Amino acid sequence: MTTFASQDPQFALPAPAQPGQALSQVDTPSLLLDLAAFERNLDRMQGRADAAGVKLRPHAKAHKTPDIALAQVARGAVGVCCQKVSEALPFVRAGIADIHISNEIATPAKAALLAALARRASMSVCVDDARQVAMLEDACRAADARLTVFVEIDVGQGRCGVKNAESALRLAEAIAGSSHLRFGGLQAYHGGAQHRRTREERRVAAARAAESAAQTVVRLDAAGIACATVTGGGTGSVEFDLASGVYTEIQPGSYVFMDGDYGRNEWDAASRFEHSLFIASTVMSVASGTRAVLDAGLKSMAVDSGLPTIWQPSPQALRYVAANDEHGIVEATDGTALPGLGAQVLLVPGHCDPTLNLYDEIVGFRDGRVECLWPVAARGLSR
Amino acid sequence: MTTFASQDPQFALPAPAQPGQALSQVDTPSLLLDLAAFERNLDRMQGRADAAGVKLRPHAKAHKTPDIALAQVARGAVGVCCQKVSEALPFVRAGIADIHISNEIATPAKAALLAALARRASMSVCVDDARQVAMLEDACRAADARLTVFVEIDVGQGRCGVKNAESALRLAEAIAGSSHLRFGGLQAYHGGAQHRRTREERRVAAARAAESAAQTVVRLDAAGIACATVTGGGTGSVEFDLASGVYTEIQPGSYVFMDGDYGRNEWDAASRFEHSLFIASTVMSVASGTRAVLDAGLKSMAVDSGLPTIWQPSPQALRYVAANDEHGIVEATDGTALPGLGAQVLLVPGHCDPTLNLYDEIVGFRDGRVECLWPVAARGLSR
Repeated sequence: MTTFASQDPQFALPAPAQPGQALSQVDTPSLLLDLAAFERNLDRMQGRADAAGVKLRPHAKAHKTPDIALAQVARGAVGVCCQKVSEALPFVRAGIADIHISNEIATPAKAALLAALARRASMSVCVDDARQVAMLEDACRAADARLTVFVEIDVGQGRCGVKNAESALRLAEAIAGSSHLRFGGLQAYHGGAQHRRTREERRVAAARAAESAAQTVVRLDAAGIACATVTGGGTGSVEFDLASGVYTEIQPGSYVFMDGDYGRNEWDAASRFEHSLFIASTVMSVASGTRAVLDAGLKSMAVDSGLPTIWQPSPQALRYVAANDEHGIVEATDGTALPGLGAQVLLVPGHCDPTLNLYDEIVGFRDGRVECLWPVAARGLSR
Repeated sequence: MTTFASQDPQFALPAPAQPGQALSQVDTPSLLLDLAAFERNLDRMQGRADAAGVKLRPHAKAHKTPDIALAQVARGAVGVCCQKVSEALPFVRAGIADIHISNEIATPAKAALLAALARRASMSVCVDDARQVAMLEDACRAADARLTVFVEIDVGQGRCGVKNAESALRLAEAIAGSSHLRFGGLQAYHGGAQHRRTREERRVAAARAAESAAQTVVRLDAAGIACATVTGGGTGSVEFDLASGVYTEIQPGSYVFMDGDYGRNEWDAASRFEHSLFIASTVMSVASGTRAVLDAGLKSMAVDSGLPTIWQPSPQALRYVAANDEHGIVEATDGTALPGLGAQVLLVPGHCDPTLNLYDEIVGFRDGRVECLWPVAARGLSR
């Protein structure tokens, strides 16, 4: 069979936008970033961390975008977190010099890749089992690499992490006794605390997490092992994490974009970040007469935290009511006119992290015009 | 800031697997394809279409993989469907000569890309509004391209498509009167009918859809416009679509892999396709003592149709109970031992289409060994 590629190697998909274009000209579905709101979010979080004297290490799993990591580091972030070893690779390539893998790994292949990264940047990772310590030591010895290792403690999430201070101590001793590993301290992250709706619920969960971490620090200290760093916390609990006196470093990610789901939480004024990330979609059918069909569905957004909300036009009167693979159904909640065929509709995704993971680029805009295209270079890197 | 890429341009992420490797060596999370089950699924659907004298045009939105499209065409498929214009591009490049966009488009940029594709392959698309016809004619005139256009009729889905035969007739006349467009016939697809749990529910919905399509064919015929093709149907309703006497072409997609959600339906023996697609994951933490934490979460699977089920080991006794971004929580439903740290766990995704859209390659295996890596070349192409 003839392949057309060989006949016409130049034939490729056009970029979704060009700098200077009006926002209405962006091809859809596309991911839009309001650069002014994004920059205010970055400044606000860095300012809060600086004021508290706590290091900011933003979570790059939220954006997977080296251009954003560089903007965070330029404002004072000490580096970034990644959730997977492979996810770190494009950030190392982009020159981010200090990356924490805020997670455990359990296979020699992943340990070998991490050791290879550790020869190119300052890398750290978490453990919650002595077998992980041995595996990391073996990989680093083979690669002649040095790696910082954190003990993860379970502070309420019920996911990864050792259950008590004695287990943490044994692991810290194993790390300290490994010639290619350095004990970095504790990771104490309570993901479930981030998404509770009221401030009081989040305050209580964050306080318990911090107390549990503090007790473990004391136990290790009594055994002569210093926790140089206690890392954890997130966008939902940052006001409490910063004030805890326990965390020396915070790991928020979502503040950059502010998910639809997070946006429905109750916030204090200083912690309410702005929605900066939107999905641009287009009305592709109005034949029913009673609804508008958008070209953005399950392949253009994650719906695990609910369907997107409408940002423009008519956020009060229009509702995105159903998502199929490549279709979104919009209805009007009162007598408001539906957007017409070909109209652009902007959506706020319910959960930004897995939505980002669907796109190859972010279209940055300011004052209604496209300013930049940033590659989502770590998209799909979950290994 | 120094970029490491320039220091070491060879430093790249290793492939998740190499041909010849044992399945247990595949890096995770990865998408695995049981090639023997996959080939039986392809043979079975082609055999059923051939026996009914109906053309098979599989939906490529399910797999987004040119290697799979080529395997379908090699067995007798007349071409493939795509759901978006951009999605078709890698299939045109791979030499698929006949592609139907089973959807409407509504912007001049998309029409221009479609016209460019129509100079390289036989392309068709759907309309449900006269403005779409005019836009397509303009784009094809500008590109000196010829395009086949189908009128989509709403046969129960309540999404896109005209509502009655008179509207279909007016659009067919507009297409037939456009110098660069050819009227191809009708698209009559009822997505909602595919996923009803009982055969009887699907039979009733499919019969209504076919009856509605038949009435429209008669109306157009009376006006002197022949519907050369009536295209539609899917994996869930294929037994009824093939027997309807109305559809000349069917568009099933999911039969290739068989989703977890589809698998929970009631089927006749001939229509029960096999699960061929799995997510390989690894246990990364067992510190809790009561659950195993997998390295595959929301970024490794779509959960819109439910969480994945466990395929290996212990499908009866283990349950995947919660997904975070990069973690999956597994519990044992009775006294069964949890899989150990580093163990590989295979999952059946609830919804294959959007799960495929997260991966860059499919790892094909046979008899427990890796045989091939196929690029998911249309991943992310939703524009």
